[in-house]
Amino acid sequence: MTTFNTVNEQHVKRFIDILGEANVYVDDENRARYAHDETEDLHFLPEVVLKPSTTADLSVIMQYCNEQVLPVTPRGGGTGLSGGALAQFGGVLISMERFKNIIHIDERNLQVTVEPGVITEELQNAVKEKGLFYPPDPSSRGSCFIGGNIAENSGGPKAVKYGVVKDYVLNLEVVLPNGNVIWTGANVLKNASGYNLTQLIVGSEGTLGIVTKIVLKLLPLPKHDLLMLVPFNSAEKACEAVSAIFRAGYTPSAMEFMERDALEWVLRFVDSSLVKVEDGVQAHLLIEVDGNHVDVLMQEMEAIAEVVLQYEAGEILFADSYQQKEELWKLRRRVAEAVKSNSVYKEEDTVVPRAELPALLKGVKEIGKKYGFHSVCYGHAGDGNLHVNIIKGDLSDELWNGTLKDGIREIFTLVKKLGGTISGEHGIGLVQKEFMSIVFDAQQMELMKLIKQAFDPNNILNRGKIFDC
Amino acid sequence: MTTFNTVNEQHVKRFIDILGEANVYVDDENRARYAHDETEDLHFLPEVVLKPSTTADLSVIMQYCNEQVLPVTPRGGGTGLSGGALAQFGGVLISMERFKNIIHIDERNLQVTVEPGVITEELQNAVKEKGLFYPPDPSSRGSCFIGGNIAENSGGPKAVKYGVVKDYVLNLEVVLPNGNVIWTGANVLKNASGYNLTQLIVGSEGTLGIVTKIVLKLLPLPKHDLLMLVPFNSAEKACEAVSAIFRAGYTPSAMEFMERDALEWVLRFVDSSLVKVEDGVQAHLLIEVDGNHVDVLMQEMEAIAEVVLQYEAGEILFADSYQQKEELWKLRRRVAEAVKSNSVYKEEDTVVPRAELPALLKGVKEIGKKYGFHSVCYGHAGDGNLHVNIIKGDLSDELWNGTLKDGIREIFTLVKKLGGTISGEHGIGLVQKEFMSIVFDAQQMELMKLIKQAFDPNNILNRGKIFDC
Repeated sequence: MTTFNTVNEQHVKRFIDILGEANVYVDDENRARYAHDETEDLHFLPEVVLKPSTTADLSVIMQYCNEQVLPVTPRGGGTGLSGGALAQFGGVLISMERFKNIIHIDERNLQVTVEPGVITEELQNAVKEKGLFYPPDPSSRGSCFIGGNIAENSGGPKAVKYGVVKDYVLNLEVVLPNGNVIWTGANVLKNASGYNLTQLIVGSEGTLGIVTKIVLKLLPLPKHDLLMLVPFNSAEKACEAVSAIFRAGYTPSAMEFMERDALEWVLRFVDSSLVKVEDGVQAHLLIEVDGNHVDVLMQEMEAIAEVVLQYEAGEILFADSYQQKEELWKLRRRVAEAVKSNSVYKEEDTVVPRAELPALLKGVKEIGKKYGFHSVCYGHAGDGNLHVNIIKGDLSDELWNGTLKDGIREIFTLVKKLGGTISGEHGIGLVQKEFMSIVFDAQQMELMKLIKQAFDPNNILNRGKIFDC
Repeated sequence: MTTFNTVNEQHVKRFIDILGEANVYVDDENRARYAHDETEDLHFLPEVVLKPSTTADLSVIMQYCNEQVLPVTPRGGGTGLSGGALAQFGGVLISMERFKNIIHIDERNLQVTVEPGVITEELQNAVKEKGLFYPPDPSSRGSCFIGGNIAENSGGPKAVKYGVVKDYVLNLEVVLPNGNVIWTGANVLKNASGYNLTQLIVGSEGTLGIVTKIVLKLLPLPKHDLLMLVPFNSAEKACEAVSAIFRAGYTPSAMEFMERDALEWVLRFVDSSLVKVEDGVQAHLLIEVDGNHVDVLMQEMEAIAEVVLQYEAGEILFADSYQQKEELWKLRRRVAEAVKSNSVYKEEDTVVPRAELPALLKGVKEIGKKYGFHSVCYGHAGDGNLHVNIIKGDLSDELWNGTLKDGIREIFTLVKKLGGTISGEHGIGLVQKEFMSIVFDAQQMELMKLIKQAFDPNNILNRGKIFDC
C-alpha cells in the first residue's frame, strides 16, 4: 500500500506559485469550511485547500501531487450524502468552485458544454431561457454542482421519465491522477468506438479523475406540466399504486412518495396553506405529468387518478396554479432538511425494481421493529428509489453506534434479495462502503480495484471512497 | 505478449466432454460457416467451434481456455459490420446461438431477462405481445442476436427518440476470461453503487467477457405512429432540415436520410408501387412520429412538414396504411443489402453532432472527388449517424487497396473536427482499429488497454479487436 506524504511548506509554496495566494488556504477557519458535507456528522480537515480555475492549472497540480504522493480529494458543492467529498486522509482538497462557466449552449445540436462548478439549478435556468431542458434535478439543485452530480450519477424526481445524469453525459474532459488530460468520448448521441470511458467516470465519485468540462445532451423544454398530491390510508397501497400507473401505460414526469411523518415534519418547517395531513393518512404520492399538449395531460391525470383510486386513495389535490405547484414541490424538496432538523439520523438510499417497493417498505418497518428504530421513508417511488431515514430520536448511543448496523445490513440484504442495490443516487462514498460486500462479491470488487489502479496507480485520488484499496 | 496455443486433440476431447459431440465442430464445412460475418470480404477459420447453452458450461470452457492459453472469439448472429465476431487468430469460436431463451418478461417492472442468442426482432415481438416496447432496432434485427447488439452498442432508426442499446441495459451476467461469473449491476433504473461495469461491457465488442444473461428496461408500447417520405433536390438541404426539426421542438421517433443512389439502388432490389425517385431529387428523409394520441401526431406531422418545406422539400408522401408504412420501412432497411449486391464496397459508420451533418456530407463528397471514389450515403440523420458506403465500382485494385485508406483517414479526420467519432453503432472490431489514433491519443488508448488487462490478463478473449495489445 502506498504511503502518503503530508503537506509541507515546500508543497504549499509550489501551490501558491501555481494558483496565487488567494486560492490556497492553509488557515484553520478556511480549511474548516471544507471539512464536512451534508452526510451525518462527519468531519475531516484537509491540510490545504486549493481553488484552481483552469484545466491547465489543475493538470500541473495533479502531476505534482502524484509525484509527491499527496492524497487529493476533489470537491463540488459539498452537498453530498455519502461523504465522497471529504478529505479522509487530510492532504490536498481541490475545490472546483471556480470552474463556474457555462461555456457554450449549442442550440443547433441541443447540447451544453459546462464547467463542473456550475450550480445545477443555474445550468437548468440558463438552458431553459433558450427553450431547452436539462432534466436531472436533485433536491439540492440550488446549491449542488453539476460536477458533483456527475461524480455521484445523481437522479432526482424527473429521473422516472427522463433518466439520471448518466443518460445526459455525452463527453467529459478529465484530469487524470498523473496530470494528463483526456476527453472520454465525443459530442455525439451514439458511440460505438472503444470502451465507454464516459460512463466509467460518471458515478465514479471522483476516484478515477477530476472532471473539468462536461458536454450534456439537452431536450426541448416541455411546454406544460400538471401536478397532484394523492393521500393514502396505507403506505403499502401507495407503493402498489406506483407500479400500477406504469403498467397502465403512463409515465409520469415525477412520482414521489412521502410517508406521513415526512410530510408532517416538513409542514412544521415550511408554511403551507394548501396541504394538511388528514387523520388516518399514512402516505402521499406527488405525481407530475409533462408534455406539450395540455388536453392530453389532463386526460393522463384523470386516467392516473382512476388508477390510484383503485388503491384506496383519498381526496386528490390538483395544483391549479404555478404557485400551488411551487408550494407542493417546496414541501417535497425540503423533506430531507426537515428530517435533519428534527433529529440525528442516518439516511439509506435504497433502490429496488419499482414493483418491489411495497415489499421493501414492509421489510424496512419490520426490521425497524426488530431493532427498535423508527424510520421515515420518502423518495423517488417511480424509480423504486426509497430514502430510508433512520431516526435517532431517544435511541441509546449504544444501539445507535452498535447493533443498528446489523439492522442496516438487514435492510440492504433485503434490497439485494428484491433485485436492488445499496445506492440509487447518493453514491457509496465513505459511509456505505462497509456494505458493499452485500451486493458485490470478491471478483466484482477485484475488477473495480483493478480499474482504479489503471487510472490511479499511486492511489492518491479520493482514496478510501467506494472501497478500500 | 502472450503466445497463444493452437487447439489440439486433447483440447477437443475436453470440449466434447463438456458439451457433447453435437456441439463441437472441427470439420471444415461447419467451421467455414463461422468464418465470416457481414463485413466486407473477411474470412478467418476458427480451429474449433463450440456451442454451449448454459452459463455453467461456458464458465468451465473459459476457465479451461484461459489455463490452456487458447484464443477465444465469441459470436452472435454473425451480422456484424466491423469484423468483431471473426476468429482472427483461429482458436476457439464460441457461438452463442443456443442461448436462446427469453427467460422472463417482467410486466410488473417493465423489464425483460433474456439470453444473448435471442434474435432481436423475436425479443421485440415477444414483449410487444404484452404491450411493451424494446426500441433499439438495427436493420439486421431479423437475424442479429441481442447479445451482439450489446457487444456493439447498436442503434437503429428509433435511437433518435429512444436512445441506443446502452440506454436499455440494466444488468448483465458475464462470464469473465478466467471463467468466473459476475452480474455487472442490479435490476434497477438508478444505480450509484460502484463503477458502472454494465456500461463498460456494453460496446466492448466481446473483449472483456461473454454476456450470458441480459436484463433490459422496457417501455409501454406507443399506440400509434405516422410515417412520411420527403424528397429534396439538395442532399445538404435535407441534412439542414434534420436539425431544424429538432430546433423547432419536435423529436421524431425516426429520422432517416437516404441519398438518391441509396433509394434508386434499393428500388432495383425491392418492388415498390409506392415510391418513385423523381428527376432532380437528390435525397430523401423518412420521418416517423409515434405516441398515444393520433390527433397530436397529426399536428406534429403537419408542423414537421412546414419545417421541411422551408428547406426546399418536394412533394411529401404520407404513408396512409400499415402496408404503406411497411413498404417504406422495407425500402430503408434493405439499402445496405442493395448497395452490397451492387458492388464491392467499404462502409464507414461516421457520427457527428446532428447539426454538422451537412458539413460532413459536403466533406465526404469533396474527399471522394479528390481521391476519385463514389460514395452512397444514408443513415440515422437524427443522430448525426451517416453510413458512408464507398463503392468499388470500376476503381482499380491499386486505388482500392492503397490510397483509398488516405481518403478514409481524411473522412475520419473531418468527423473528429466536427466533434464526432469513427463509429456510431457498428463498432471498431478489426476493420476500424487502424483509425483509432485519429480520435484517441496515447493516454486514452493506454487506459483502454489497462482495462482490457484487468479483465483479461492473458489476453485470450477476442484479442486484436478494437486495438492491438
